Amino acid sequence: MNTKPKVVVIGGGTGSFVALTGLKKYPVDLSAIVTMSDSGGSNKRIRDEFGLLPTSDIRQCLVALSDENGNTGLLRQLFMYRFSKGEGISGMTFGNLFMAALSDIVGSQEEAIRQTGKVLRIRGTVIPVSFTKTNLFAEYTDGKILTEEYLIDEPPLGSVTSRIKKVYLKPKTKVNPQAIEAIKKADYIVIGPGDLYTSIIPNLLVGGITKALSETKAKKVYALNLMTKYGQTTDYKASDHIATLEKYTYKNIVDAVLVNTQKPSKEALKWYRDFEEYPVVDNLGNIKSTKIIRAPLLKNAIIEKDSSDSLKRSIIRHDPEKLASAIMELLNK
Amino acid sequence: MNTKPKVVVIGGGTGSFVALTGLKKYPVDLSAIVTMSDSGGSNKRIRDEFGLLPTSDIRQCLVALSDENGNTGLLRQLFMYRFSKGEGISGMTFGNLFMAALSDIVGSQEEAIRQTGKVLRIRGTVIPVSFTKTNLFAEYTDGKILTEEYLIDEPPLGSVTSRIKKVYLKPKTKVNPQAIEAIKKADYIVIGPGDLYTSIIPNLLVGGITKALSETKAKKVYALNLMTKYGQTTDYKASDHIATLEKYTYKNIVDAVLVNTQKPSKEALKWYRDFEEYPVVDNLGNIKSTKIIRAPLLKNAIIEKDSSDSLKRSIIRHDPEKLASAIMELLNK
Repeated sequence: MNTKPKVVVIGGGTGSFVALTGLKKYPVDLSAIVTMSDSGGSNKRIRDEFGLLPTSDIRQCLVALSDENGNTGLLRQLFMYRFSKGEGISGMTFGNLFMAALSDIVGSQEEAIRQTGKVLRIRGTVIPVSFTKTNLFAEYTDGKILTEEYLIDEPPLGSVTSRIKKVYLKPKTKVNPQAIEAIKKADYIVIGPGDLYTSIIPNLLVGGITKALSETKAKKVYALNLMTKYGQTTDYKASDHIATLEKYTYKNIVDAVLVNTQKPSKEALKWYRDFEEYPVVDNLGNIKSTKIIRAPLLKNAIIEKDSSDSLKRSIIRHDPEKLASAIMELLNK
Repeated sequence: MNTKPKVVVIGGGTGSFVALTGLKKYPVDLSAIVTMSDSGGSNKRIRDEFGLLPTSDIRQCLVALSDENGNTGLLRQLFMYRFSKGEGISGMTFGNLFMAALSDIVGSQEEAIRQTGKVLRIRGTVIPVSFTKTNLFAEYTDGKILTEEYLIDEPPLGSVTSRIKKVYLKPKTKVNPQAIEAIKKADYIVIGPGDLYTSIIPNLLVGGITKALSETKAKKVYALNLMTKYGQTTDYKASDHIATLEKYTYKNIVDAVLVNTQKPSKEALKWYRDFEEYPVVDNLGNIKSTKIIRAPLLKNAIIEKDSSDSLKRSIIRHDPEKLASAIMELLNK
């Protein structure tokens, strides 16, 4: 009998990568529910030219959960590798090409993800929130509508002059039943860390997810973002993040919020300032309904931007160990 | 102490793939010395755009020697996979991209080949004949000179109107010392099967190889080609193949010649006839200096052309089991 607590991380991208990297070292039964509406870079080509679902978020979660030793460690490195040479190949990530080839060989992307998990000897389960194609749309307060995830995620500086009014998926997607099951059976659900509108909410928009969240007896914690994101959460304070999360789900969805108290370095802050991004202000005080856990959660080392997109635009990051430790402390209470 | 007989296969491409696939099932210490002057298709891009040495022949030998079970079997399939989608990606083999990425990660192509062998859990050793860049040149009797391997290997029908006068490598390459050592320590050396001018002789042209072959006490067997190759060995009978081999090395280089006696199917012969290619005529009789071993060596099944280049243009092939069995019989005499 498996008596390990069931922990589900909901998100995609760098945030999930960090959370899973930390949590896999604990004796928990770990699952990652991953957004499937990413459309940037390598993903865009996977979607447009290969006719597949986006795989970058999946890939990052698989890498996070992978065995870091021996040959598997080498495959892990390959999975994070981005080609810098080759016409039409430069810019592609090896992992995405691996999964595209494998999807063709085994006949489905779902099976390819499962097999890739085996090859990387992952500790846990990676669950795409959906297997149907969709796009993330964002409507802004000035009436403008952006129709692809990558445009919403990384708009050119100066291009966004109003706030996001609402985001939605078009066409509607069919939820992956495995995601519902994981939520229902979970003991603990970690929402985030991750970009609010492009990594977290796209999961919650998939039919059935919010309902499952409201029905599960799992405790839910929200790992608050460290920094605002230009064009997405500009000026958002901690309370805005939570209010937005609630807007797309229901009131008091989370039992606890994890808030970082550690100051980033001046150099890192300057780097972000150039992108008009700033630390998320903690204005939560001591709200009654939700437990606020404050702890130093930052990765101390300067993160060099490298060829892997798991580190792209993430110089200020959660520390996997600190984050996991804070989550586990909550879990053991 | 390793008392297994040391068997070295010299060649590249489909022929080596077949020989190694068969031989790996026997208790022998197996090595493959592989030509590094291939310049066709995926290789051309690996050379031109990635600045690497060609890897298709290496890749085929690695796949041939790989473990066919479990996750390794899946990686094996991936290594044979050729992309059919993606602008700039379609036509590339996964295995070549794998090795290009790995070369970048581990810092050298030599180490990447070694690591790939580990990942594929190969039984044996794959030895590039050289690690310096070169091209195969062919001078024809009408004075025409072709300056790249792939042009010599697969010239358009009708384009070759005279015979190959000589082939040479330019610039001269430095031999991989591991190749010399393998030849010197070998108990048995299998030359071929493989295209005479583009897979076999390019190995013999590398400085030091012929000398090592003349010095080793290993028995040498030549696996004669099944079919002539347009523009390369048009009209070559068995004796022409051996004479050519001797021209590029020395008289009586081989102790034995393996000759197929089995008739290909009419359908397969018709397919080859369209490319002006015909079964190699056995005119060897019973020459004194060399043992002639005649046996049915054909693969019976019709080989479908697939996306892997190991089967490209090889509908009539040696059967790995029959070939290996004939080689092992010689070896145990």
